[in-house]
Amino acid sequence: MRHLLSTKTLSQGEALQILDVAEDMAAVSTREVKKLPALRGKTVVNLFFEDSTRTRISFEAAAKRLSADVINFSAKGSSVSKGESLKDTAQTLAAMGADGVVIRHHASGAPHVLAESNWIDAPIVNAGDGTHEHPTQALLDAFTIRRRLFGDRSRGRDLDGVSVVIVGDVMHSRVARSNLWLLQTLGAHVTFVAPATLVPFGAETDWPVGISYDFDQTIRDTRPDVVMMLRIQSERMNAAFFPNAREYSREWGLDDARLASLRPDTIVMHPGPMNRGLEISAGAADSAQSTVLEQVTNGVSIRMAVLYLLMSGDREVQP
Amino acid sequence: MRHLLSTKTLSQGEALQILDVAEDMAAVSTREVKKLPALRGKTVVNLFFEDSTRTRISFEAAAKRLSADVINFSAKGSSVSKGESLKDTAQTLAAMGADGVVIRHHASGAPHVLAESNWIDAPIVNAGDGTHEHPTQALLDAFTIRRRLFGDRSRGRDLDGVSVVIVGDVMHSRVARSNLWLLQTLGAHVTFVAPATLVPFGAETDWPVGISYDFDQTIRDTRPDVVMMLRIQSERMNAAFFPNAREYSREWGLDDARLASLRPDTIVMHPGPMNRGLEISAGAADSAQSTVLEQVTNGVSIRMAVLYLLMSGDREVQP
Amino acid sequence: MRHLLSTKTLSQGEALQILDVAEDMAAVSTREVKKLPALRGKTVVNLFFEDSTRTRISFEAAAKRLSADVINFSAKGSSVSKGESLKDTAQTLAAMGADGVVIRHHASGAPHVLAESNWIDAPIVNAGDGTHEHPTQALLDAFTIRRRLFGDRSRGRDLDGVSVVIVGDVMHSRVARSNLWLLQTLGAHVTFVAPATLVPFGAETDWPVGISYDFDQTIRDTRPDVVMMLRIQSERMNAAFFPNAREYSREWGLDDARLASLRPDTIVMHPGPMNRGLEISAGAADSAQSTVLEQVTNGVSIRMAVLYLLMSGDREVQP
Repeated sequence: MRHLLSTKTLSQGEALQILDVAEDMAAVSTREVKKLPALRGKTVVNLFFEDSTRTRISFEAAAKRLSADVINFSAKGSSVSKGESLKDTAQTLAAMGADGVVIRHHASGAPHVLAESNWIDAPIVNAGDGTHEHPTQALLDAFTIRRRLFGDRSRGRDLDGVSVVIVGDVMHSRVARSNLWLLQTLGAHVTFVAPATLVPFGAETDWPVGISYDFDQTIRDTRPDVVMMLRIQSERMNAAFFPNAREYSREWGLDDARLASLRPDTIVMHPGPMNRGLEISAGAADSAQSTVLEQVTNGVSIRMAVLYLLMSGDREVQP
Repeated sequence: MRHLLSTKTLSQGEALQILDVAEDMAAVSTREVKKLPALRGKTVVNLFFEDSTRTRISFEAAAKRLSADVINFSAKGSSVSKGESLKDTAQTLAAMGADGVVIRHHASGAPHVLAESNWIDAPIVNAGDGTHEHPTQALLDAFTIRRRLFGDRSRGRDLDGVSVVIVGDVMHSRVARSNLWLLQTLGAHVTFVAPATLVPFGAETDWPVGISYDFDQTIRDTRPDVVMMLRIQSERMNAAFFPNAREYSREWGLDDARLASLRPDTIVMHPGPMNRGLEISAGAADSAQSTVLEQVTNGVSIRMAVLYLLMSGDREVQP
Repeated sequence: MRHLLSTKTLSQGEALQILDVAEDMAAVSTREVKKLPALRGKTVVNLFFEDSTRTRISFEAAAKRLSADVINFSAKGSSVSKGESLKDTAQTLAAMGADGVVIRHHASGAPHVLAESNWIDAPIVNAGDGTHEHPTQALLDAFTIRRRLFGDRSRGRDLDGVSVVIVGDVMHSRVARSNLWLLQTLGAHVTFVAPATLVPFGAETDWPVGISYDFDQTIRDTRPDVVMMLRIQSERMNAAFFPNAREYSREWGLDDARLASLRPDTIVMHPGPMNRGLEISAGAADSAQSTVLEQVTNGVSIRMAVLYLLMSGDREVQP
């Protein structure tokens, strides 16, 4: 594994390696001095063509805990906004000695272009590209599911037989896509629940996923281990294909009644930031079943694991 | 002391402890290698909902001198600007492992909300909230007064009997409020001088402060040890309750004539950035009586002391 | 040398010292741990009144490789944008303990004002001021030329007899100015090629430079060792004195035909970011003769050398 671009191409062995190294990193993060010297003298560039404070600071915290130097490169106000090409930006970062690049881009596929080019030799981590993928989000989600279901016995385990329902605007969601591929690789069974207008073309026939248009029915039928709610992008709310907020909330939101209809040990997940009262009620968000904050914590461990595996020479962690 | 939210609730013992630790920190800052390992492996988040480059870089320099990692979180362009609640932001920072949060917020009371919640367990430092408080500013001001008045004999001293005149828009000034409470706790006598429209409601009857509407008269009557000028917020200049610039400068500005009417050892203070020619003349700002730059220097020492006391396990500094 | 403001006032000895120390720094940057402890405990402030992500991150990477703490101060959204004077900003940085200031300013001469003032005692590095100078760019260009021409035998060498042609909007280019002075000091011969409207007033009579209005003629006549293309500022493109893009490209761009008319060992330089297809063709930019990316790499080494020489006590590098 030279880059982390997608969960679709990740083998089960690679995925489990990342999850297991993240277990070690989670242990480091509970120590008095939360630092490993693994990446001392190396430079991680956060190359963000889209604002995303949460993802940026999660990677920044992860890199700093590994003792790397971090340089934040926001495309705003840079020569990128003056029309510099991705090629020239990448070659410039390479020439400055970037040892790893975390890229967030509004265009689907931009991280792949970077990785497949010969513009830069450093490992590329996809931190979200268009509506395509967000692999570290899927990895932290899988890590969170595994820890909730198996606790101390997580190490080495896949998610064979786990049932996951992903609810919302799956068409535009890179989180849904990355989760689908990874969960399938790990042996879980995934169902998408969405308005008919928000199901990706071809998903019903070509993707390894169940499709449902009825949230309540799906809960009754699958009695899922995990319900993962997607964030509604409010800027899409006025589009013709989109239900209005009240209808959306009633049909596809996780409100208190639906929460009560879940098994008491079903996990409720959300990538954040949440629209409380829209796709998820405050009661569901703050319930004991919710893993929203564990997901954030685990995000730092997963990103430490990914940066460590891609950027250090070693394959073994010495915590 | 778990947080630093306000000077109103600070005991004299706590205030003197901060001032005394800041003396140690000032000594560190004069060394060849200006760093202590005290906060190595800890992460300080600068959570700024309002722009304030000066305050942000003062806290950033302080944290880095204590070997902490610093993550700057500006609310602009973040999910906060997309409507994320303070609760979700705080829980996210907690989940990422923030060991201390420095918060600047346009809403009075926001830091208290954070500290009194169970959203985040880390120490909270108020770096200015609305028109309410700015405690590290008051502490650095007290530190500056003490050093000017007592020099090497400062350690352990309060400000008993010191006379301080604070001049300007005291109604909207968190600097004036934080100074009033702290100076009173330390035994100083404070007089506010302001246009009648810019005195806080109830201050005359309920606050431990003298009120005056005549700067010259106050200088003659009190022969103060300290004259502290407040910054005029130009965005308020056109409000109905506000005098125009020329009138303001004539009645409530510290011009060269008023400077000459002070005792030659009266200290002239300003929190910066100054509007030279408006609330303070260039002559006064650059005079030997001015402590404007000492205040900036002392700001780093005070912030080091506060972060150290709140975030390290120790209560003793080992410089 | 207390500051680096200009290449005009740099002696040949000083210039060669920077170039030679940069050779040592280039060696550090190829090591497994790319860090020197030279500036540990020191703080470099990047004071940027103009956006320039490339230059900022080059200085940031350089400072971090020397183990300095870096504080980025962008004038946007700071008290500077509220009208704070350069004097007050500088005094504030000094009071906070800045050990070195890297300044980028839209006004020609701003770094000199800072250095000649008594506002701040720290070394000042000019990172580009108006249309005046950009000395680290010229130094990295000279370093790049020297390495290409002399390879391992570069150390201690000047550029005696080297022929350099600089092409484009030399009137508005700080890169052209800084290069001219430095190249002349190092013994090179410089020719400016530009539209008649874009030659600086007086350059023809008073500057130590050949002036030409015909690129092809100049290539034939001088058979240069180096062709340095300047970036076109698109915001100038509509000005009356400016040729249109097509004409500019045809007369003063380095297209594939002109590239072919150069000696095969002529170096092609560009400070970046490039407007491919305008002042330089993609073929020329990506040819083996192009040093565009070496210039970026060398930029970090030069900036390490400059910060090291100005900020550490030593004059010797111990790598």
